Amino acid sequence: MANEERLTRMRRAMEAQRLDALVLRLPENVLLLSGFWPMIGATTLVFPLHGNSVCIIPSCYEQEAAKSLWDSQRVFYGYGVLEAPNPAIAVQNSLSAIAKGKSWKRVGYEASFEVVAPSWNSAEFLVPAVQSREMLANVFAGSELVDVSVLLQTQRLQKTTYEIEKLRLASEISCFGLDMFEKLVEVGITGVELAAAVEKEVMVSGTKKGADRVRAFAQVAVGPVETAVGYRPNEVSTLLRMKAGDVALLELGLVVDGYWADRTRVRVAGQPTDEQFKIFEVVRKAQEAATAAIKPGVSGAYVDEAARSVIREAGYAEYFPHVTGHGLGFRYHESSPILAPQSATELEEGNLTSVEPGIYKKLVGGFRIEDDVLVTATAAEIFGPFPKNLV
Amino acid sequence: MANEERLTRMRRAMEAQRLDALVLRLPENVLLLSGFWPMIGATTLVFPLHGNSVCIIPSCYEQEAAKSLWDSQRVFYGYGVLEAPNPAIAVQNSLSAIAKGKSWKRVGYEASFEVVAPSWNSAEFLVPAVQSREMLANVFAGSELVDVSVLLQTQRLQKTTYEIEKLRLASEISCFGLDMFEKLVEVGITGVELAAAVEKEVMVSGTKKGADRVRAFAQVAVGPVETAVGYRPNEVSTLLRMKAGDVALLELGLVVDGYWADRTRVRVAGQPTDEQFKIFEVVRKAQEAATAAIKPGVSGAYVDEAARSVIREAGYAEYFPHVTGHGLGFRYHESSPILAPQSATELEEGNLTSVEPGIYKKLVGGFRIEDDVLVTATAAEIFGPFPKNLV
Repeated sequence: MANEERLTRMRRAMEAQRLDALVLRLPENVLLLSGFWPMIGATTLVFPLHGNSVCIIPSCYEQEAAKSLWDSQRVFYGYGVLEAPNPAIAVQNSLSAIAKGKSWKRVGYEASFEVVAPSWNSAEFLVPAVQSREMLANVFAGSELVDVSVLLQTQRLQKTTYEIEKLRLASEISCFGLDMFEKLVEVGITGVELAAAVEKEVMVSGTKKGADRVRAFAQVAVGPVETAVGYRPNEVSTLLRMKAGDVALLELGLVVDGYWADRTRVRVAGQPTDEQFKIFEVVRKAQEAATAAIKPGVSGAYVDEAARSVIREAGYAEYFPHVTGHGLGFRYHESSPILAPQSATELEEGNLTSVEPGIYKKLVGGFRIEDDVLVTATAAEIFGPFPKNLV
Repeated sequence: MANEERLTRMRRAMEAQRLDALVLRLPENVLLLSGFWPMIGATTLVFPLHGNSVCIIPSCYEQEAAKSLWDSQRVFYGYGVLEAPNPAIAVQNSLSAIAKGKSWKRVGYEASFEVVAPSWNSAEFLVPAVQSREMLANVFAGSELVDVSVLLQTQRLQKTTYEIEKLRLASEISCFGLDMFEKLVEVGITGVELAAAVEKEVMVSGTKKGADRVRAFAQVAVGPVETAVGYRPNEVSTLLRMKAGDVALLELGLVVDGYWADRTRVRVAGQPTDEQFKIFEVVRKAQEAATAAIKPGVSGAYVDEAARSVIREAGYAEYFPHVTGHGLGFRYHESSPILAPQSATELEEGNLTSVEPGIYKKLVGGFRIEDDVLVTATAAEIFGPFPKNLV
């Protein structure tokens, strides 16, 4: 049940950095080391080098915590009700009780996470700022506070067996959205309508596949102008209606119990032109060449070149302005690996990366295909395989 | 077009605190002072006491920025493409160019926002942490950096005419979701199905009402156990199917071009019991009594008591464990006003508050009705009025 591999590895990394404990508040890191994906970001995890971790949780989420926490001790505090103390004070008091008598010398915390994943209720959430820093300085007055943001991000790159199962499920669930998108693309539909239908389908069908909490963030650009802006980190869904021959480009981020997937498919309404077919085929071949190049020990640049050379040889080099892929897992994007021309980073078993070459040509449209790919012991596993067809 | 009232007021507040400029990175504050709601949180606004503001924007969002920015100068930097510099360096370079020759003594920044609203793409976003602090320390080496988090949050509480129009629209759009919820509540439907349908409807119909970007965050708890957990800051949607006589409780947060609404409605599938009818009527009367009590100069406690006394007199005091309302606008929840027993804060014209008493009784269900209410010169305006019916 528990993700022992993760806990063991993290403790080994902590030992190497002489860290006695971590105090984590970001939902993505609480999940990493406790199994519980907070509903809102007011949960705090104390993860010591020795002994059980302790999770400080708003009491109204007792049931959800009980269901998903591995082996952390649980401390609850009243939240959202009249008699409840200020959450900051409640958490500080719990932390003080935990710290008592521990004589920890070095305590790690999240000082420099500038890009973060939402908690389940992504409408609003807590991020550790000055107040959290001051709380830790108060509670651990004799200790050195150490920024462990890089340590956490690095440790997260190599997924454990437990996490791989969760991430595979996230990509499998994304297929409900890809399928709905392809069913609905037709003359007259808008980008917003496509995005909304995809999100609904992912949430409804995803939760029937054994996940508790699923949310999709779909963006659908429509037509040659919107889809070929050059490249955006995410498309922008608008009220433009598809005309015959228009491209629809779906960028789909989604989260399943805290684990992320990132997919893209592209479709044409009606009959594609010869050039649209040709470009799509080049993108498909580039995407498959990059996927085939993935194995432990090769560099990000090597995999990127596998895709880029296909596009270059077809004469579209200038229309592929972005990287071939990026890491992901505990967030929509993670810091590594990066599949890009200058990327010397070597792929390792357990890395998860997107593979997403694209060609964006004015007056024709933007075309991208994206899958999430696990680096296995010898090659690559495509998570949630899904057909690649333009129509 | 521009929100001059806001800019003037902010400059007056800056003058009082001898602030020469603000450098803002959180989407909710960039929106407040520029009119542009960032797609992702990599936009930075420099808002000086004298002269035009400057907005530093990823170039791929040039079109969206042009459409919504009031009068800021625009500086673009490459983003997400191969030749683009590190965004942190790009922003720092732009900031340095802006700061050159300015001799600002005190520069404000967001040091202690621990609860934040997402950018449009709420799947992931940038929050200013240690790196942003260091960047500002580099760029403004001779200046004093001042935490203006409280100043910003305070200024945001009194909405301007421009903002009131935007916020009224957000609540009007929320009615599409409430309506869809009430249409779909029936025996056999799950909380997740209701939530997903509400979110889809809000996005599709909301964007047809003149908004560019609409996203809903719906939570639907179902049945007497889930809805009567006591009270949660948000319900938890599950796969529980409604049985005859079950309550469905919809908590609906939503954002329209960066402006928030927060609504709740409750329905019973099939025939409610006498007690369900009775409780619902008590909640409705309490909610209307609180709304009627709202006007400038009264305290949060006074309004809370208007609702609480109705519930107390009906014998349900112990089942109403939370506050009667909270501020909102640039976020799902804002720091003030709080309508609660000990709240001495006086309401002011331009405040926006939720009014949301509830009764949560085990074996019967949780019942809450929530509207967003503006404090006008003499009384209250309910944004997006919507019927209150249990069936």
